[in-house]
Amino acid sequence: MFRLLLSNALILKGETFTPVRGFLAVEDDTISYIGPDRPEGEPAREIDLHGAIVLPGLVNAHGHAAMVLLRGLGSGLPLDRWLNEAIFPAEARLTLPMEMAAVRLAQMEMLACGTTSYTDMYDFAFEEAALTAETGMKVNLGRPVLSFDARELPAESTRFREAAAFQKEWDNAANGRIRAEFCVHAEYTNRSLSILEAVGDLAALRHSRIHIHLSETAREHAACVRRYGMTPAALLEHLGLLRSPLVAAHCVHLSREDRGMLRQYDFTPVHCPASNMKLGSGFAPVPDFLSDGFTVALGTDGASSNNCLNMFREMYLAALLHKGVRGDASVLTARDVLHMATRAGALAQGRPETGLLETGMKADLCAVDAGRIHLFPLLDPVDTLVYSAQGSDVILTAVDGRILYENGVWTAFDAEEVRARVKEAARALYGA
Amino acid sequence: MFRLLLSNALILKGETFTPVRGFLAVEDDTISYIGPDRPEGEPAREIDLHGAIVLPGLVNAHGHAAMVLLRGLGSGLPLDRWLNEAIFPAEARLTLPMEMAAVRLAQMEMLACGTTSYTDMYDFAFEEAALTAETGMKVNLGRPVLSFDARELPAESTRFREAAAFQKEWDNAANGRIRAEFCVHAEYTNRSLSILEAVGDLAALRHSRIHIHLSETAREHAACVRRYGMTPAALLEHLGLLRSPLVAAHCVHLSREDRGMLRQYDFTPVHCPASNMKLGSGFAPVPDFLSDGFTVALGTDGASSNNCLNMFREMYLAALLHKGVRGDASVLTARDVLHMATRAGALAQGRPETGLLETGMKADLCAVDAGRIHLFPLLDPVDTLVYSAQGSDVILTAVDGRILYENGVWTAFDAEEVRARVKEAARALYGA
Repeated sequence: MFRLLLSNALILKGETFTPVRGFLAVEDDTISYIGPDRPEGEPAREIDLHGAIVLPGLVNAHGHAAMVLLRGLGSGLPLDRWLNEAIFPAEARLTLPMEMAAVRLAQMEMLACGTTSYTDMYDFAFEEAALTAETGMKVNLGRPVLSFDARELPAESTRFREAAAFQKEWDNAANGRIRAEFCVHAEYTNRSLSILEAVGDLAALRHSRIHIHLSETAREHAACVRRYGMTPAALLEHLGLLRSPLVAAHCVHLSREDRGMLRQYDFTPVHCPASNMKLGSGFAPVPDFLSDGFTVALGTDGASSNNCLNMFREMYLAALLHKGVRGDASVLTARDVLHMATRAGALAQGRPETGLLETGMKADLCAVDAGRIHLFPLLDPVDTLVYSAQGSDVILTAVDGRILYENGVWTAFDAEEVRARVKEAARALYGA
Repeated sequence: MFRLLLSNALILKGETFTPVRGFLAVEDDTISYIGPDRPEGEPAREIDLHGAIVLPGLVNAHGHAAMVLLRGLGSGLPLDRWLNEAIFPAEARLTLPMEMAAVRLAQMEMLACGTTSYTDMYDFAFEEAALTAETGMKVNLGRPVLSFDARELPAESTRFREAAAFQKEWDNAANGRIRAEFCVHAEYTNRSLSILEAVGDLAALRHSRIHIHLSETAREHAACVRRYGMTPAALLEHLGLLRSPLVAAHCVHLSREDRGMLRQYDFTPVHCPASNMKLGSGFAPVPDFLSDGFTVALGTDGASSNNCLNMFREMYLAALLHKGVRGDASVLTARDVLHMATRAGALAQGRPETGLLETGMKADLCAVDAGRIHLFPLLDPVDTLVYSAQGSDVILTAVDGRILYENGVWTAFDAEEVRARVKEAARALYGA
């Protein structure tokens, strides 16, 4: 007796994405069968996918969901001016209801493009966690730590206290869909080294993960070297933050020495190609990360510097970009990139129970309509997903076996209400 | 009495893309009105666009339409191996019926993504022209000239004879929708300099345009310098091909001297960012072209090295890429890129009567659904089109005022028959 049966599907099975034509069955929240023959028993629901490609749900390993409300703000500005002149002034006017409407919109956008889980860094982590407990997505969240006064002590920092409380309260909530972790905004937004040390200690004590922005721009990387005589990565090691699994967005300007040092730790770079290009930050050395043996995840960053939360665009960019940079059409294969967007993201989130399609794994998956004309003639399904498919080709997205998006309908969202609330928020932010 | 009225639209008017909320009317094949007030008279048809953004039809200024049949073939190979090991062997098996089915599919794909006109280079130009006379798109076509024997004379060359005949027979056919021009595949595929000279002479005599692949790879550029002591661009000047307007795809490896020389001529580089990255060819110096004063057009190249014919993806890539390469978020604004994909493309095709929305211009346009959640909050329509929109957001495409695509329906194509024929072609090419 199983809950959901996907039939007439082209299932990309396991870490090798081996195509299997046939059936995928889900019992409770888990994949119970993948194979060419119809399994015995009666499903609660059967969906004929008409040959659609079923792939692991995409994992957006770095972002700021609520920034969909700032989508496109400050286009054409470099990171520092973009933050100070466009983003920070708008953020100062954001309210909790605005942000929660925006998070709902962001989750709708991600689900519509096949994303089942995301790692987020923004204000109002408590409220985003509560909201996500409702909506059914998976999320890794932290209350971001920032400290602009070098003398500030952990005991004096509201941010640090809240970060610690959040991590304790929300980790493994909602049947494990919510993972609470420590979140350090960046080296350059944390001048108090004692607070950074305290994060490192507490994360190690609690076996928690840490999420951070690292060496995103050349300027920030160089400023840290001037300030401490150490790169940002070396500073994190020095302060004890590498005792915990560290997930670091961007890593555009990590040095060769940084990479050598980081290989000894549980360190995952998250590649954000769109954002790094749009802000003029440069290109992360992803082929080097892969040949060094790092697990590399993929993220959209916030919609304000992307401008979307569409992992299909991100996969396409990642697959093309490094071939151009290296002048070598063979770097970053479609398989490398699909792995980054699925299994690598799941591992970056500390979720080994998901990220690939295999019996016994969580049923986090999406389906891509194989009949779209721009996918024709579909010589290789993995190539097709990475180089040809658009986010809008996704026809079904399920998290823990529960369908959250199907053919333009979000089953756990009142889409009209979300649109109305986001419009209201935009009116308040930007005027009529 | 006018034919078509688009109401409730956000029209991007003129070369400045100035947003006008209101109405756009079409009489016969021409835009007769753009403004906030309903024009007098009764339209044959009125379409309420519910706030959709109306923009000039996109111009895909370099491609090989029929290569949709080879979509994804040879992924991961560099240009020379990709051509010799994957593409040429498959092309040798292509037949006329296969190619014509593929061209129809390609036109459907382009129309669905807002492209109204394209410049093509492939075999069977006569038949593609006849087909396009039927389907309603605009196309610039040539019968490609290739010559692998340095001693071959123009009078002996079937290719040259056919190219000349095609240009004469088809130029300005189908009410000007079809423009026939000369098409030289590339320097490296034309060893007979006398044939190249003959093309230059005949094009100048007939006031025709010339379309070519130019300095796509470093290897090809260097080989030409070794062979003749001249860059490919200098060779073309030497042989008299720059007396005619020259439209050159790729231009990744043009030298600074090439650029200085080419500024004196009617020369248009066509940027193909996806293809140049996917094949590992590198990045064309587009910001330099623009600051030199060149009109720069945009193209998808063939689907085999892209993998799509989606100008929205191409705009997004162009807008992001050069910011990353230059480390400067201010290069190539969204306006620059939208201009490349519209007006610049129209001028590259020698079609000054189109490429922007203005009274008296041809009614080549498309509409993007402004209600899609990933476009929210739509702070700036041009930014939104370039950084947020997907090809699948297009809801209407019209050429010369005739609607060829509307909400998933291709009015001039039997979509099911095209699919069936392309499937049959793929079966013959690749087996079951």
